Amino acid sequence: MIKNNLPVIILVRPQMGENIGSVARAMSNFGLHELRLVAPRDGWPNRRAKKTASGAEPLLKAAKLYPDVASAMADVHLAYATTARPRDMEKRVIEPAEAMREIKVHSASGTRVALVFGPERTGLDNEDITWCDTLITIPTAENASLNLAQSAVIVGYEWLRQQNVTTVARTLPGIAPKEDWHGLFTQLEAYLDQVNYYRVADKKTVMWQNLRNMLLRGQFSAQEVRSFRGMLRALWERRAKNSKEVISE
Amino acid sequence: MIKNNLPVIILVRPQMGENIGSVARAMSNFGLHELRLVAPRDGWPNRRAKKTASGAEPLLKAAKLYPDVASAMADVHLAYATTARPRDMEKRVIEPAEAMREIKVHSASGTRVALVFGPERTGLDNEDITWCDTLITIPTAENASLNLAQSAVIVGYEWLRQQNVTTVARTLPGIAPKEDWHGLFTQLEAYLDQVNYYRVADKKTVMWQNLRNMLLRGQFSAQEVRSFRGMLRALWERRAKNSKEVISE
Repeated sequence: MIKNNLPVIILVRPQMGENIGSVARAMSNFGLHELRLVAPRDGWPNRRAKKTASGAEPLLKAAKLYPDVASAMADVHLAYATTARPRDMEKRVIEPAEAMREIKVHSASGTRVALVFGPERTGLDNEDITWCDTLITIPTAENASLNLAQSAVIVGYEWLRQQNVTTVARTLPGIAPKEDWHGLFTQLEAYLDQVNYYRVADKKTVMWQNLRNMLLRGQFSAQEVRSFRGMLRALWERRAKNSKEVISE
Repeated sequence: MIKNNLPVIILVRPQMGENIGSVARAMSNFGLHELRLVAPRDGWPNRRAKKTASGAEPLLKAAKLYPDVASAMADVHLAYATTARPRDMEKRVIEPAEAMREIKVHSASGTRVALVFGPERTGLDNEDITWCDTLITIPTAENASLNLAQSAVIVGYEWLRQQNVTTVARTLPGIAPKEDWHGLFTQLEAYLDQVNYYRVADKKTVMWQNLRNMLLRGQFSAQEVRSFRGMLRALWERRAKNSKEVISE
């Protein structure tokens, strides 16, 4: 296992410093190293995070700060979101053991994976989730409320546990990093906005999320993203030219 | 699964109320119900435990208080201790997944199992561990320090996870409850003390623990404990009588 290709942990808008520290501790317990923070509520660095890090201080100090999910995921190929609630989004939902089995294979083949956790009180919102390829749901009994630190402990534990389980390796196509997808989505969204595609403004959010989810499930390679974008651009620009020609006829 | 034959959780001399609450929360997350507390440092009930229980308040309210490990384990047949450090004791050490697989089978066959956790700072001491049949060690990476709440989360998670895994049931002999073992050990210790068996007082602790560990590994049934005690008593009493006869000869 190449150390710099271990899954990265992304905490999206974490609220309490103590929880950031506990997540760092769990990471160091289970052999994960890279922590990314998206817009932590109380700023960064955070004194309270150190209190609960217990042995994970270097990891905490090396944590990287990002303004948004897009920038935190720029170099990530596959993102797994940990979420308790089923979403009405067309995403694959799997349990931690299955997730870690496949992430092990992805990581070994050079694919960069992110494990994404949302804010304590609300969890990831749908906009965050559109960035993610797969949802991880931790099975629970009657009390389904797990906190951020507990979820990170379980995910970390399963990660390490799967390292000791023999998995049949399979070859995977190189999936495009998220910054490529971001480029594709930005381009497409601009086109759609310009043609007033959504008409009713308050329907746009859901429709646009659905569209991104659909595309993402295709697991395009970087080359495929380029081709797709080229196709869109060609359509967009040539159609404009073609229309003018039609009008000028 | 019969609800009242689920594994019980025993916290031995827990220090912080917050951790007791977190353990209760993890229990309710993963379908465990019975919490036993041995001599909690700050007494019981504890206001701070409620703060972290989040949905597990009824479980916390029903927690039972015991003065010592012996009484907390009186009706337990098999005890599994969660401990990070390897002990120089002849006990079987397994990982949580394997432990929960076999506990599932034990529980289904009517064997009462306890999952035992030690105090936060020191963990279980050797005396506590002599009560336990098997040690559970959670695999960790470079930072091996897991806190009480984290350990309980992992053990609970594995418990629930194994409920969904098909296990080949196997028939197990009925193992004697710990109160039977306690009776055996008390009897035997009294005998040994009376004959000044240990001679050097400061060696007794370790020697006595080793002896108990050896016996416990036999997994005696209640009937076998009775037979063994009867054998000891017979030896003890008849030997006394025999000696007198020898002397009086």
